[in-house]
Amino acid sequence: MNYRMISRIIALILAVEAFFLLPPLAISFADGSVAAGLGFVYTFFIALGLSGLFALLGRAARPGFYAREGLVSVGLGWIALSLVGCLPFLFSGEIRHPVDALFEIVSGFTTTGASILPQVGVGPQTRGILFWRSFSHWLGGMGVLVFLLAVVPISGRSDGFTVHLLRAESPGPNVGKLVPRMRRTAVILYLLYIVLTVLNVVFLLFGGMNWFEALCTAFGTAGTGGFGVRPDSIAGYSPYLQVVTAVFMLLFGVNFSIYYLLILGRLKDALKDEELRLYFGIVALATLTIAVNIRHAFAGTGEALRHAFFTVSSIMTTTGFATVDFDRWPALSKAILFSLMIVGASAGSTGGGLKVARLLQLLKSMARNIRQLLRPNRVERIRVNGQPVSEQILDSTNAYLATYVLLFVGSFLLVSLDGFSLETNISAVAACFNNIGPGFDIVGPTGNYASYSVFSKLILIFDMLAGRLEIFPMLVLFAPAAWKR
Amino acid sequence: MNYRMISRIIALILAVEAFFLLPPLAISFADGSVAAGLGFVYTFFIALGLSGLFALLGRAARPGFYAREGLVSVGLGWIALSLVGCLPFLFSGEIRHPVDALFEIVSGFTTTGASILPQVGVGPQTRGILFWRSFSHWLGGMGVLVFLLAVVPISGRSDGFTVHLLRAESPGPNVGKLVPRMRRTAVILYLLYIVLTVLNVVFLLFGGMNWFEALCTAFGTAGTGGFGVRPDSIAGYSPYLQVVTAVFMLLFGVNFSIYYLLILGRLKDALKDEELRLYFGIVALATLTIAVNIRHAFAGTGEALRHAFFTVSSIMTTTGFATVDFDRWPALSKAILFSLMIVGASAGSTGGGLKVARLLQLLKSMARNIRQLLRPNRVERIRVNGQPVSEQILDSTNAYLATYVLLFVGSFLLVSLDGFSLETNISAVAACFNNIGPGFDIVGPTGNYASYSVFSKLILIFDMLAGRLEIFPMLVLFAPAAWKR
Repeated sequence: MNYRMISRIIALILAVEAFFLLPPLAISFADGSVAAGLGFVYTFFIALGLSGLFALLGRAARPGFYAREGLVSVGLGWIALSLVGCLPFLFSGEIRHPVDALFEIVSGFTTTGASILPQVGVGPQTRGILFWRSFSHWLGGMGVLVFLLAVVPISGRSDGFTVHLLRAESPGPNVGKLVPRMRRTAVILYLLYIVLTVLNVVFLLFGGMNWFEALCTAFGTAGTGGFGVRPDSIAGYSPYLQVVTAVFMLLFGVNFSIYYLLILGRLKDALKDEELRLYFGIVALATLTIAVNIRHAFAGTGEALRHAFFTVSSIMTTTGFATVDFDRWPALSKAILFSLMIVGASAGSTGGGLKVARLLQLLKSMARNIRQLLRPNRVERIRVNGQPVSEQILDSTNAYLATYVLLFVGSFLLVSLDGFSLETNISAVAACFNNIGPGFDIVGPTGNYASYSVFSKLILIFDMLAGRLEIFPMLVLFAPAAWKR
Repeated sequence: MNYRMISRIIALILAVEAFFLLPPLAISFADGSVAAGLGFVYTFFIALGLSGLFALLGRAARPGFYAREGLVSVGLGWIALSLVGCLPFLFSGEIRHPVDALFEIVSGFTTTGASILPQVGVGPQTRGILFWRSFSHWLGGMGVLVFLLAVVPISGRSDGFTVHLLRAESPGPNVGKLVPRMRRTAVILYLLYIVLTVLNVVFLLFGGMNWFEALCTAFGTAGTGGFGVRPDSIAGYSPYLQVVTAVFMLLFGVNFSIYYLLILGRLKDALKDEELRLYFGIVALATLTIAVNIRHAFAGTGEALRHAFFTVSSIMTTTGFATVDFDRWPALSKAILFSLMIVGASAGSTGGGLKVARLLQLLKSMARNIRQLLRPNRVERIRVNGQPVSEQILDSTNAYLATYVLLFVGSFLLVSLDGFSLETNISAVAACFNNIGPGFDIVGPTGNYASYSVFSKLILIFDMLAGRLEIFPMLVLFAPAAWKR
């Protein structure tokens, strides 16, 4: 294991984080929130100091950077990012328990949006702190390392190096290079991300939102995170703002390579993409079914349809914003939402979950397995978008699901120690592991995660990180083989 | 597809069923229950008549019997068995709705033990009908086709033929031949099954149970079914009888090849079996954890331990007998039980679920995947009991899990249409798909499945059959390729 190289990457991550602490720092002092402002100042210097320390440890790193270095860098990098990122909450005194602060920032960076705060916007939180929460969604959405690769020149960096880091941090079963050079891919991804975020802010400002709320809401939408700045999430905003947010959540849940195809003018290829069709198909079907199912609870069909669309978009993209308390919806609607939680958004988007691309592969390989049982002599290859999918990718998708299920059940068992209802526990794990945020019952849209014990919070923190990083960068940290010389 | 051969197998299955209708027929007339007795008489002649009809359709069958014929025969055979087997309930008038009757007998044959009857032993059910319910567990436990292969000479039968039928009906990822010839394997399995059942009856009689209840309870235990003959399942029996039942459930959840090893005097090999160790390890850990968790609800530690042991044994082996209302247990205990529902018993036992052997493979391949991510160049093979497991078997285990998850989620969505709680629906699907019987909430040990709609019952009937037959014999029936000439 190339520890020195890993140290250098952690140094860079912390330097980037220090830089990103500056906007909330400025907001805090502009608002006159001195405690919060000083919290950001301290954290800024700690981040820089640690960055320097890791840079020292990593000097004279020998070359050689492989898949395992990529995985370990990403796992440790995100842990370092979170440990430093939670400090402003503690320094400002706005969150008192260290595990709570860690839970909140991990929830931010992993774009989960699960909170231990009972209410925001009416509590003691200052705007700087709220901004940092939402901003962490935006940073975590496309990935801190992707950002790093896009802007920072790392000496000794080769394309293999970039590939391993990008693969380990990007969501989805098969992260395609958009262009042959990985660094350019990272640049293109971030440019698309910025442009879409700016568009989102403009649409929100146009609907009368103030600058601060527009920025924070757009960050939560772009990262498919879901931290809000108001006590009732998105419920208090106008129908226009709700629909804008629902549409943008959906857009950020699309594979970004689709946008690249659009830029290249390949509209037809983009529209024929099977994952895209399945994604929108599921959204449409779920929205209509839920709208019929909840129709009686609203004044008009339009209103039922709007809330159904918003909630489906929010859960499927794993954002977690809410306009209504969907925990009170009928069983069918909740069952659909629970299933959407697990499916998640598209591969190569900022959303979490298993990913629609994996669902597509699983469905196709199930149908193929049945046909092959009937005709064992016929060799049949699975194709997605006309391209054959290698057996290796199918096997790794199956293995991913198996690991997912094992971790899910394990986490569910461990958080059950706290004695909450089966529905609370199973939805809490689903909501954290798939980076959604709200679940049902105690952790429903009007509830929060504060009641869980410190132990359960640590389990859920692990789940959020595992969910965001597609499990393996977190799991390898527990493998003895990762720590052998 | 060799339809004529399939017809012949269905003819044989129905002939065997007619034969097995005779004991409950005799009991009914001996009790003076004329309506039930006549119901069995009518069903007997219908079974024989249909058997003759299928035999006619199947005459002059050409040779040629492959995996797909095996799967389709098993799928259709079990459907035919159930359609005829539910008739006594309807003729006797003791169950009035056809779908309810079908649900009850499918629950019997698949050794699920889920019931639509509000209470047994105090209702209108006669002993002949109750005997048929319990007897169906015993028949379904080891498999009707395994029985057929053991006793009936089928002309044109080759070993390949036997293999395909046995594979399609037997539970577990890798059904080993005990001896080179499959027919002898079937004979040995049934002999072991009969000997263990007789032992169970003797132990129950020794504890003061009457003959009728001892037989029915042993049938429910041997098949890991769980239909009881008393309104409170096993709760009203003495601690001795409860412990005997718990121990025998556990014994029927062991891979039968272990008993064969014991007969051969290979005790050491038997005790070293990794699946066996994991199976007993899980039982021990779950029992102790639950006993601590429920300790406060009972008078003494011994009593808490007994109920914990009984319930763990009942759920893990997918039997479903109950001594207490475990639906009222604390969250941790329910979470453990829910996880055990999915794991299930050992491969090659009469129990259902995913099977401990598959869990073992999944855990080992997860650990291997992590090590291989860290050291991509090292080739590592997974071994179980010292034998390398082929990649093909690992892939098919992963694919099985994927299919399992997809069907689970699909069924959960469909039964949610009825509007019951998430806990009811998710546990109803888990309890039917894994052939357990009772779930939580409405379908808990003191509840039943009567409140579900006809549509949901049909879904659960499919789940029970799919669970018992390891999914694919039921799924292929929906594949167009199965019906092409």
